[in-house]
Amino acid sequence: MTEFVPPGTRYVELTSPFAMKRGNALHGARVAYETWGTLSAKRDNAVLILTGLSPNAHAASHPDNPDPGWWEAMLGPGKPIDTDRWFVVCVNSLGSCKGSTGPASTDPATGAPYGIDFPALSVEDGARAAREVVTSLDIGQLACVIGCSMGGMSALAYLAMFPGSARSHVNVSGAARALPFSIAIRSLQREAIRLDPNWNQGRYDDDHYPDSGMRIARKLGVVTYRSSLEWDGRFGRVRLDSEDRPEEPFGHEFQIESYLEAHARRFVRQFDPNCYLFLSRSMDWFDLGECMGTTTEKALAAIRLERALAVGVATDILFPLQQQEEIAQGLEAGGAVTTFAPLPSPQGHDAFLVDIDRFGPTIGDFLRAID
Amino acid sequence: MTEFVPPGTRYVELTSPFAMKRGNALHGARVAYETWGTLSAKRDNAVLILTGLSPNAHAASHPDNPDPGWWEAMLGPGKPIDTDRWFVVCVNSLGSCKGSTGPASTDPATGAPYGIDFPALSVEDGARAAREVVTSLDIGQLACVIGCSMGGMSALAYLAMFPGSARSHVNVSGAARALPFSIAIRSLQREAIRLDPNWNQGRYDDDHYPDSGMRIARKLGVVTYRSSLEWDGRFGRVRLDSEDRPEEPFGHEFQIESYLEAHARRFVRQFDPNCYLFLSRSMDWFDLGECMGTTTEKALAAIRLERALAVGVATDILFPLQQQEEIAQGLEAGGAVTTFAPLPSPQGHDAFLVDIDRFGPTIGDFLRAID
Repeated sequence: MTEFVPPGTRYVELTSPFAMKRGNALHGARVAYETWGTLSAKRDNAVLILTGLSPNAHAASHPDNPDPGWWEAMLGPGKPIDTDRWFVVCVNSLGSCKGSTGPASTDPATGAPYGIDFPALSVEDGARAAREVVTSLDIGQLACVIGCSMGGMSALAYLAMFPGSARSHVNVSGAARALPFSIAIRSLQREAIRLDPNWNQGRYDDDHYPDSGMRIARKLGVVTYRSSLEWDGRFGRVRLDSEDRPEEPFGHEFQIESYLEAHARRFVRQFDPNCYLFLSRSMDWFDLGECMGTTTEKALAAIRLERALAVGVATDILFPLQQQEEIAQGLEAGGAVTTFAPLPSPQGHDAFLVDIDRFGPTIGDFLRAID
Repeated sequence: MTEFVPPGTRYVELTSPFAMKRGNALHGARVAYETWGTLSAKRDNAVLILTGLSPNAHAASHPDNPDPGWWEAMLGPGKPIDTDRWFVVCVNSLGSCKGSTGPASTDPATGAPYGIDFPALSVEDGARAAREVVTSLDIGQLACVIGCSMGGMSALAYLAMFPGSARSHVNVSGAARALPFSIAIRSLQREAIRLDPNWNQGRYDDDHYPDSGMRIARKLGVVTYRSSLEWDGRFGRVRLDSEDRPEEPFGHEFQIESYLEAHARRFVRQFDPNCYLFLSRSMDWFDLGECMGTTTEKALAAIRLERALAVGVATDILFPLQQQEEIAQGLEAGGAVTTFAPLPSPQGHDAFLVDIDRFGPTIGDFLRAID
């Protein structure tokens, strides 16, 4: 699956065997990452970015890969995450298909892809793998851990499991645990993939590929990543031109339908279905309190930070604003100088990717205030 | 498909041919309905109920069918829709599979089910069919038209197309037009059915039936009919007992997943997939303004009523509260004494079916105030 990995990606070999939280271990596994800026002599200016389910480690362009990254407007010289000051590391999640070892990778024990025989994946495993990237770079304490969406879960797991590993934290549209609406959505996405006959218990190939299941899963994702408010203004009831309408019964007629179709088309063959299933389920399982053997509230308050920012938007139905508020309250109870920033973005869960006018200053101001 | 029709259902033969809004006509079509209470000597106490996508005409028990109906708590002697006072008629939508003619019915021209050769179905066609039920009962002017969900669309079409046909109107979690979020959800439901190989361009049978597509469509429906707020309290992160977990990769683990499964199981073989496609698309197409050749606002204001009530809930993501507010403002501009009732139900779009404590008094008070 190397075609999914952008050029200029670097790798860290994980401890082998790498024990997984729910049992079993990976042998010869690796994690993909990219970096920006320069690590200071004191090695105290490092910022770690943990991503959502689908992004690779290419958060922004750099000399080895000038292609724009998924957070291009946020990260770079003079940008909110200012690489003139910070040494930034972005990690591709363990279990992904964008460079890090995951279900699409070759199992050294069999010479074939792991498929669904990959060990059960937890958010905590991803956090531990990211920790090995940080230690491999000889970074003692991070200046900040930034986690977006699923990465917001990974970041909390990281901070809770490795006390003192960071001075500050930015939680972007994240959550301390999965709640039933988002579990329902993800369960349905996984079911669409599993019900596709071509999924075939995870044994598909390019000629027999669960396109239909992935298409439904991705479209349902996009529906929950954006917001009705945004779409009312952006698409309304505008129809497709008749020449753009597929000639099939119940084919698409509205612009909103072709928008979803375009999203699905860009995703379906670019993300491995089994990786999707494992990462998706890891989010359902995540519960910081359960991870630390206590309540969510106490697990958050046990995290010691100098400063914290929890940011989100009211139109997010997947990681609703109350979840970022819960994080802010918990981290503040733990002694961090904390900002809870509910932003009036209309773009829903994806706002952090597109509403840079609002997220940029919020995150930029926070990072500038770090000692 | 007679197994879907409850006992005690009555029928009206539609004008034949019955011309459809988008072309073609039905021959020998009929509409199923049930009634409660007694029509007054002046024939001025009739209330028409138009339903959402899936219900049959059995809104409540009656002597011919003592089984509880889908609005049992709302309708009956002494209940909010008080059948001691009102003569109530509930119509099964044209295009449904619960008694009225629809895609699962036999096409008299071929002797086989219409399937996807059924004429393109519009909400307006359903309203016109309901009108024929009312006239067949020799009711001149209805005391009230009550429309829930899709039925809220049908009711507005009815009132706009047949001026003076009712003195009052209750719009329950309805809309004057479909907006892109709900179009996206319905498009995705239809796509899940269409992508199921067993759908087979609408030519399935009981042995080759699009169970998978219907299952996804129904679960996605339930996700959008309820609300995350309700589910947080009701399900939280509670797991299934291990003996209740299916032994399959990525099988269900959380209560919320088995709740969706139970809903799907009750629905999949009880509603015809082609009927689902036609009714679902009719909602996407609905735009009261377009129907009347003007704007939504003007089309609503052109409806003349004595009294109107638009009721909904803030947790409804499918027919959001702003849409009921739009209806209220429009009908008020048309001269109706209008109440807009945003209720604090946590149950989302389905609240009108389950939160009778809130919907009951709101609708009951409104009906009591009708002269």
